[in-house]
Amino acid sequence: MKKLINEVGEYVNEMLDGFVVALPAVRRVEGTQVIVRSQLAQKVGVVSGGGSGHEPAHAGYVGYGMLDGAVAGEVFTSPTPDQVLEAIRTVNQGQGVLLVIKNYTGDVMNFEMAADLARAEGIEVEQVVVNDDVAVDGSTYTVGRRGIAGTVFVHKVAGAAAEAGLSLTTVRKLAEKVIANVRSMGMGLSPCTVPANGQPSFELGESEVEMGIGIHGEPGIERLPLTSSDETVNFLLTRILSDLPFSKGDEVAVMVNGMGSTPLSELFIANRRVSQVLSAQGINVYRTFVGEFMTSLEMAGFSVSLLKLDDEMKRYLDAPTHAPAWPNMGGLGQ
Amino acid sequence: MKKLINEVGEYVNEMLDGFVVALPAVRRVEGTQVIVRSQLAQKVGVVSGGGSGHEPAHAGYVGYGMLDGAVAGEVFTSPTPDQVLEAIRTVNQGQGVLLVIKNYTGDVMNFEMAADLARAEGIEVEQVVVNDDVAVDGSTYTVGRRGIAGTVFVHKVAGAAAEAGLSLTTVRKLAEKVIANVRSMGMGLSPCTVPANGQPSFELGESEVEMGIGIHGEPGIERLPLTSSDETVNFLLTRILSDLPFSKGDEVAVMVNGMGSTPLSELFIANRRVSQVLSAQGINVYRTFVGEFMTSLEMAGFSVSLLKLDDEMKRYLDAPTHAPAWPNMGGLGQ
Repeated sequence: MKKLINEVGEYVNEMLDGFVVALPAVRRVEGTQVIVRSQLAQKVGVVSGGGSGHEPAHAGYVGYGMLDGAVAGEVFTSPTPDQVLEAIRTVNQGQGVLLVIKNYTGDVMNFEMAADLARAEGIEVEQVVVNDDVAVDGSTYTVGRRGIAGTVFVHKVAGAAAEAGLSLTTVRKLAEKVIANVRSMGMGLSPCTVPANGQPSFELGESEVEMGIGIHGEPGIERLPLTSSDETVNFLLTRILSDLPFSKGDEVAVMVNGMGSTPLSELFIANRRVSQVLSAQGINVYRTFVGEFMTSLEMAGFSVSLLKLDDEMKRYLDAPTHAPAWPNMGGLGQ
Repeated sequence: MKKLINEVGEYVNEMLDGFVVALPAVRRVEGTQVIVRSQLAQKVGVVSGGGSGHEPAHAGYVGYGMLDGAVAGEVFTSPTPDQVLEAIRTVNQGQGVLLVIKNYTGDVMNFEMAADLARAEGIEVEQVVVNDDVAVDGSTYTVGRRGIAGTVFVHKVAGAAAEAGLSLTTVRKLAEKVIANVRSMGMGLSPCTVPANGQPSFELGESEVEMGIGIHGEPGIERLPLTSSDETVNFLLTRILSDLPFSKGDEVAVMVNGMGSTPLSELFIANRRVSQVLSAQGINVYRTFVGEFMTSLEMAGFSVSLLKLDDEMKRYLDAPTHAPAWPNMGGLGQ
């Protein structure tokens, strides 16, 4: 295992320390793995989180216009209910808290338990479960579809809606609308190594790829020979487009998300093909996001997410945010 | 070679296509590898560039408040003079153009030749050469010190100064002030593979690292056993801090830059130690930037850059920009 770390057991702790010293607009709730905004606003709180190893998710999305708090579990391990509860308590300003949960068995169980505990304390809590991955129905990690990079669109839209002062139920419904309209699929060229394990999560041959891979090194739908970038994008888009389905005339946001060690150049090469395929099908691209948004440690590979937009979602997608991991949108016409 | 590409010969071309379709605020000058702002302002133009493979450098820094144009050579290969000339001609609005060149023999030669050709056409051109890497004096790529991630600070400050309407000579002097005050050093855990070569640039053992590595897979100052993140940071900072030298009471901007496949989590772990060392030496951190700013394809490793600031540089560092690869600074108090 060749990693730039100190003690394996301190991985998440030290990462969070290094994160908060870089960013004065966030702080760590003392004695926890919870990151919150330094200044909380009088509005509905939005909290997400999950296992670590997906950086910049989830702490990178904490900031004005996106999340109020993010809970970091150990690598690829759900945060415990008491940590989630701490996040809910901290961000709650009396107007309730929305939990954005990715659909993994551990996450759903622990976030729901925390929600119940918070409700018992009189805090209003609602929740949504993101399941954007069209690749598999059920895996070692979950029952039903997994939540992957499309979750970031939920953070953005729900966060902006909360910032606009909407009620908890309205923000929750808007998050559900994003979930209903976002589809993703990923593929991997290489495994990743969880620090506490020390061994790669799986083995792939020099010219093999895993299609439909998750964000924890868990398997996808099939192992195929490595082919061109264009054919790889075609493969992913065929499944994504037919799933919703997306149709001619639809307007979409595109996310081309690197899994951790795929060069940005290769992500842009993939985006070229995404753009071509969508254009050929009469689907209009409203915004494109290319980069690392929801990673899987140092895995090589990428995912594509499409979000079918309406005017309401467009407005919240474009609303200003200070979250450090949301791209500088100035160049997109804001 | 396991990469998500199509034809090797189309790598840069397709990457640039995928870049411009993602970003409406930039365009590609037809028939060239030059990216410019879609809307050019009446002001001094700032142009940078170099070999590809360093994404998001350099095209990601094109936008309001940073570069007006970026020239992309083939991977790890200087752009040709005619391409640089095309960038100068396109961005020039009659107030002259500043070239920001990284100190590599090919880049310096080709950018200077382009500057001479542009001057012969009556365009005022000045240039600066960035040489922030404290690791080596001379390598296979250059005479003197190399330009690495610290170059991004030059783009930011010079770009903001040009946006503020300063004259060509004033912008050039400010860029020189940044160069005089920025120091960097990097290390690598793994090599990278140039698509056209198909083979890793060097071999490293499972527990070896290369200290002082450049951004083209060229060697550093010594090959050492892999040690902890903290000790690695100590090693780099010892050389960086003593070079300027940085002293107690200085105020600095920190950049912890991933080389391509180092997880963001490991960069934050490194930043924690950077912060500790600077604090212990009485050096104040004004801003911290953690992410991928100047990469070397899929190399694993990172570099640390420190820029000693004064009020003038702070102002331009904090000035707004729309360049997509400059972080969303909202959370830093803007």
